[in-house]
Amino acid sequence: MERRPHVVIIGGGFGGLAAARALAGAPVNVTLVDRRNHHLFQPLLYQVATAALNPSDIAYPIRAALAKQRNARVLLAEARSIDVAKRHVVLDDGALDYDYLVVATGATHSYFGKDWGQVAPGLKSIEDALEIRRRVFLAYEAAERESDPVAQREWLTFVVVGGGPTGVELAGALGEIGLHTLAHDFRSIDPTQVRVVLFEGGDRVLAAYPPKLSLAARRSLENRHVEVRLNTLVTAIDATGVTVTCADVAERVGTRTVLWAAGVQASPLAADLGAARDRAGRVEVRPDLSLPDHPEIFVIGDLAKMISDGVQVPGVAQGALQGGKHVGKIIAAEARGAAKPANRPAFRYHDKGNMATIGRASAVVATKRFSISGLTAWLLWWVVHIMFLVGFKNRLLVMFHWGWNWLTFTRGARLITGEVGPLPEIKTIGPDGEVVLPQGATSVSLGDNVKDSAAPPPS
Amino acid sequence: MERRPHVVIIGGGFGGLAAARALAGAPVNVTLVDRRNHHLFQPLLYQVATAALNPSDIAYPIRAALAKQRNARVLLAEARSIDVAKRHVVLDDGALDYDYLVVATGATHSYFGKDWGQVAPGLKSIEDALEIRRRVFLAYEAAERESDPVAQREWLTFVVVGGGPTGVELAGALGEIGLHTLAHDFRSIDPTQVRVVLFEGGDRVLAAYPPKLSLAARRSLENRHVEVRLNTLVTAIDATGVTVTCADVAERVGTRTVLWAAGVQASPLAADLGAARDRAGRVEVRPDLSLPDHPEIFVIGDLAKMISDGVQVPGVAQGALQGGKHVGKIIAAEARGAAKPANRPAFRYHDKGNMATIGRASAVVATKRFSISGLTAWLLWWVVHIMFLVGFKNRLLVMFHWGWNWLTFTRGARLITGEVGPLPEIKTIGPDGEVVLPQGATSVSLGDNVKDSAAPPPS
Repeated sequence: MERRPHVVIIGGGFGGLAAARALAGAPVNVTLVDRRNHHLFQPLLYQVATAALNPSDIAYPIRAALAKQRNARVLLAEARSIDVAKRHVVLDDGALDYDYLVVATGATHSYFGKDWGQVAPGLKSIEDALEIRRRVFLAYEAAERESDPVAQREWLTFVVVGGGPTGVELAGALGEIGLHTLAHDFRSIDPTQVRVVLFEGGDRVLAAYPPKLSLAARRSLENRHVEVRLNTLVTAIDATGVTVTCADVAERVGTRTVLWAAGVQASPLAADLGAARDRAGRVEVRPDLSLPDHPEIFVIGDLAKMISDGVQVPGVAQGALQGGKHVGKIIAAEARGAAKPANRPAFRYHDKGNMATIGRASAVVATKRFSISGLTAWLLWWVVHIMFLVGFKNRLLVMFHWGWNWLTFTRGARLITGEVGPLPEIKTIGPDGEVVLPQGATSVSLGDNVKDSAAPPPS
Repeated sequence: MERRPHVVIIGGGFGGLAAARALAGAPVNVTLVDRRNHHLFQPLLYQVATAALNPSDIAYPIRAALAKQRNARVLLAEARSIDVAKRHVVLDDGALDYDYLVVATGATHSYFGKDWGQVAPGLKSIEDALEIRRRVFLAYEAAERESDPVAQREWLTFVVVGGGPTGVELAGALGEIGLHTLAHDFRSIDPTQVRVVLFEGGDRVLAAYPPKLSLAARRSLENRHVEVRLNTLVTAIDATGVTVTCADVAERVGTRTVLWAAGVQASPLAADLGAARDRAGRVEVRPDLSLPDHPEIFVIGDLAKMISDGVQVPGVAQGALQGGKHVGKIIAAEARGAAKPANRPAFRYHDKGNMATIGRASAVVATKRFSISGLTAWLLWWVVHIMFLVGFKNRLLVMFHWGWNWLTFTRGARLITGEVGPLPEIKTIGPDGEVVLPQGATSVSLGDNVKDSAAPPPS
């Protein structure tokens, strides 16, 4: 029996999984390596971060996705380095030899060299989303307990850095959480008075969209009480606030919750490939998506600077998916002996359009043919995202969660798990809810800023 | 305006939440303190641990559960100690004065003085459930990579200690995961060959049930390939196995996954109350559930040794729920001036029966009037658990998850989140899946123990 080529795919995201699936039935052995056991529908990750969806609604075991593809195996492992000369991938605890290598490890947050990872978490993994969820809902808990009005205001201020799709979607959801989800749940704070600020360095949000959609998105955010601050750069972030500059004027905004949606950088594995990279670390690939000196190595998705018809392919799910399918087909044809590396087709990206949602009944959709906003765009966004979700059950479930949230203005997944960090000291609370301050300070009533908590007097 | 009594409730489980709700409309101020933000439907926690349900399917924000009860406030805080003389609860960062105190902090795992917490996690919180889920599914991943057959066998052996409802339910689910859920997902292992062992010190599982149901449960477990080992005590647990003794004969079972369902102990707060306690730390209360010397303090649920008609109330959800309702009514009546502490009614437990599920279409149900097992019991179990879940949406969702899992033999929530710990080294895997062992050892094929992975030869 002839030896089958061994195809190693690093990364089980849209690109890697599409490549593996395109190899179904081909005379190859496929090993897909990922350090997580699940494929993630990343475009909906912000919905987990804002408690509208559960992690397993948007994640699916890679192993189950490839269970029926008999020529594929899945390995839970982290790729540490690549030896392109020896055709060898070094894992955290072992190694893989390959005949073909597909690198699809995607991108991670970039803080532009700053040390802001702890104070301003980004959104790339389920763990990131749960950490953001924890911080957001704990901030309301902290505000409820806080007796210092300045600190309370900081707890109720949420800052999002970056006005791309993730930033816009996070900010819109944060606005709605205050306005609707938590409106009646607290006694000492009024969640509808929450402040959400979105900082964007450019002159409009959603810069990749037509200007009229940027404007529509901004209006829609403002309807959700989100302050959109354009042409503004963040210069410092610490535990109690951010410092920004706009037209050379510096300003400090007090906040305890900063979310980072401003920059991404290609995963560090790219450095091992020995190929040229752009400023964001993306690997420059040939038209067929292989490396200039290594036709057996393909780089796809957010890790690659993919060019189609002279234009750079945007770092979105569609680009990764189409890239994965493209290289999977090339490898399958060569393994069957039906094609040679010298005659590979160039990758052509089919732009099916971009969409982002701002919240309840509001989204923007831009395609080559039309661009719309509002309810129609939102319905379209909804249908498209449901359709792309991996797994039929997930589609039904997500539809159910969303339908329910829409009808009831609630969010079902408001769990705070993990350690509860330090919260404001609440001093002593007496029988009528008055706060007894330490060191003999004057006692103030917690009821002062309560909207409507007066219970009927005893009958 | 007359000062309203301040009722402090510690713990937002079945007991605490029932007490708070029974005080709705009463002329009191209620403060419910919990260190978590969610009420947990603990009887279904094992379903989260075994990936059938999502955390938020069985957990509900306490704050949302009491949002409409205007005389109640919710505080996310941990009660550290109680000063019964000063009527004062010390929190991790503050304090509360009370007129009435309801202590409902429940129970935690007990390892009978052994240091087995790390090697044998128990199941009390969402975090516990996710940790167990992580360990179970990682064990399969590790087995898939393991080339040493002894170690592989250890990874595929799951030990449950304790044959009460939690132990039986966990063992049954673990058996089904191997037999059905993962049957086709791996290439180097055959998940249906998984070994699940349930150790119980007594002479039957489900000792609180009639003997014929214990027998039915045991048969049902054995149908799921669970080895039920009765009259067997665990004497040692370490990272690669457990040591047990049965009839003075010691035996070691190699395993990498041990789950603890053997013992519980009342929460440590009980010690502050100055009242007599039994061996498991439960507080001895008067017939009205208050403390002998402190009529203003009530202890309910798993923390209390509640007696009804001369019989000890079992540590189940119904007992806590009914206890909470009972003390809530007493406090409401006294706050209204309609009753005096001297004339309080005694608590009477209404036993609505016990039920446990062993798996797909198999459960046992015991009430005063009848005891059944099998499919009918399972349907009854299903209806009752759905009905008791807090929140209408949760009911629909859980029904959906279960229906789906039942139809498809899958489990939707198979995510491994958090850190992936050390897994077996996989050495070098060559193009045909052969393992290249270090130090020039003979190369073995990973395909040797694969059931059905032969792909068609290249055409």
